[in-house]
Amino acid sequence: MEEKLIYSGKSKNVYEITSGRYSGKYRLVFKDDATGYFENGKAVFDPGYDTVVGQIPGKGAIACRFATHFFKLLQEHGIPSHYIDTVSDNEMIVEPALPLGIPADSPEFPGSAPLQNLEFTWRNNATGSFWRRYPFVRPCRNIHKVVEAWTKGDTDILITFEALEETGAMTRAEIDYSVELVKKIAEIVTSEFGSKGLHVLDGKFELGRLKYGDRKIVIIDEISPDVVRVCRGYAPDKDGNCTIYKDCTVTNFAEGKRTIKNRNQVKAADFISVFL
Amino acid sequence: MEEKLIYSGKSKNVYEITSGRYSGKYRLVFKDDATGYFENGKAVFDPGYDTVVGQIPGKGAIACRFATHFFKLLQEHGIPSHYIDTVSDNEMIVEPALPLGIPADSPEFPGSAPLQNLEFTWRNNATGSFWRRYPFVRPCRNIHKVVEAWTKGDTDILITFEALEETGAMTRAEIDYSVELVKKIAEIVTSEFGSKGLHVLDGKFELGRLKYGDRKIVIIDEISPDVVRVCRGYAPDKDGNCTIYKDCTVTNFAEGKRTIKNRNQVKAADFISVFL
Repeated sequence: MEEKLIYSGKSKNVYEITSGRYSGKYRLVFKDDATGYFENGKAVFDPGYDTVVGQIPGKGAIACRFATHFFKLLQEHGIPSHYIDTVSDNEMIVEPALPLGIPADSPEFPGSAPLQNLEFTWRNNATGSFWRRYPFVRPCRNIHKVVEAWTKGDTDILITFEALEETGAMTRAEIDYSVELVKKIAEIVTSEFGSKGLHVLDGKFELGRLKYGDRKIVIIDEISPDVVRVCRGYAPDKDGNCTIYKDCTVTNFAEGKRTIKNRNQVKAADFISVFL
Repeated sequence: MEEKLIYSGKSKNVYEITSGRYSGKYRLVFKDDATGYFENGKAVFDPGYDTVVGQIPGKGAIACRFATHFFKLLQEHGIPSHYIDTVSDNEMIVEPALPLGIPADSPEFPGSAPLQNLEFTWRNNATGSFWRRYPFVRPCRNIHKVVEAWTKGDTDILITFEALEETGAMTRAEIDYSVELVKKIAEIVTSEFGSKGLHVLDGKFELGRLKYGDRKIVIIDEISPDVVRVCRGYAPDKDGNCTIYKDCTVTNFAEGKRTIKNRNQVKAADFISVFL
């Protein structure tokens, strides 16, 4: 296949295929590169870091199988995505799609910047940044997959749907469609983890517009263990609020900063193999 | 009038009236205290500061007349507020009302905190923190009085209406009612300034629930020159986007921080007398 590299990230490369059966589509190649930090000259792998410090053989193949599992699951449920096919251990063919961004409307002003993309978070339970922002809420209260949109730029900034519409980045109909899409996918992902005795606390998805055809809004980027926060031992009451939060949730408040963690949270490395 | 002090702030004291015609109501006494800073041992008044550095004789009376003007204007338009009467140069009688707060749901967790109040911002044009947060927008684009809610605590934090509902702080019906109320008041305030050749860029209101009776949600706290940002020379196109933004708006970007100001903005001190 002739092709050109159009994006190179820490976890994958994206190529445009220029000939053959999949001409015009994108090929994702999942990498073995792993992020982390150096300690005493030795690489320590840690997905919480952004610097590539080495390789973990087979990492790309595992990520590809995990993503393939979920894209096929979405297909079975009739959910649109950019997924077309998985063609080798670590290679996937997808429809070209564009992020939900817009150029800066007045680039002549210092500090003006394009909207690079929108990220949609959804939450089954109130933890993480939701509790840190709204600490009057009981930890792990059921918040019914509430969807929040974040502008991606130098930093991630919350934007209300009303403001998003006013900026011209999305129409109200596109926003409503996107929120429903995120909630449907969230439901499927939650239920799939549930079938393995795991509970999804929250997650984040990137949506995009298909580059060709009807330019439909679909989920782009793969569903990976890094886009969901998962726990074990979820014990909901009849309203879906977890009842063991007093034993599970640990918060702290120091120097004006709140932290929150859940003892029963399961690390990505410990649940990635569940679907392989 | 017998009464007890229930709140003492920088700009006013609030007393509960315990006898007489207005028994059970609150009396607001607007103060002459003024905030600012000290320079070479001399007080410099500046409403941007939070420390009281001296008094400006007549300041309380002017604030009281300004607020009275707008509460009466709202009354004429049938908009509910806590306002009852103005009984002297610097004294107002109001219905007792409670802020839109809720106690911390799980106070046993370190860092948990009550929701003290909600503040509602509304914007005719994209400037201030809206542009700083969403710098892909053209400065002073018409954003149709878009309303955003902010939780008041250690810091002001944006909360979407969907999240607000999920926290249990307000019902969806209360949120919809509040947004419409804020927009109606914004329209009246904008139009009143417009009649004096001034344009309101944006503003913020605090709402509350009346303490007695039907516990209706009303505007509480007074409309003061500090809750609106005002300019002169607004020149909208047919869509309401200001056309002179290239001459008026000045932005900067340094060390990751954006600033934005509008040359035609009018300081509070320079428009407070317009309605007296």
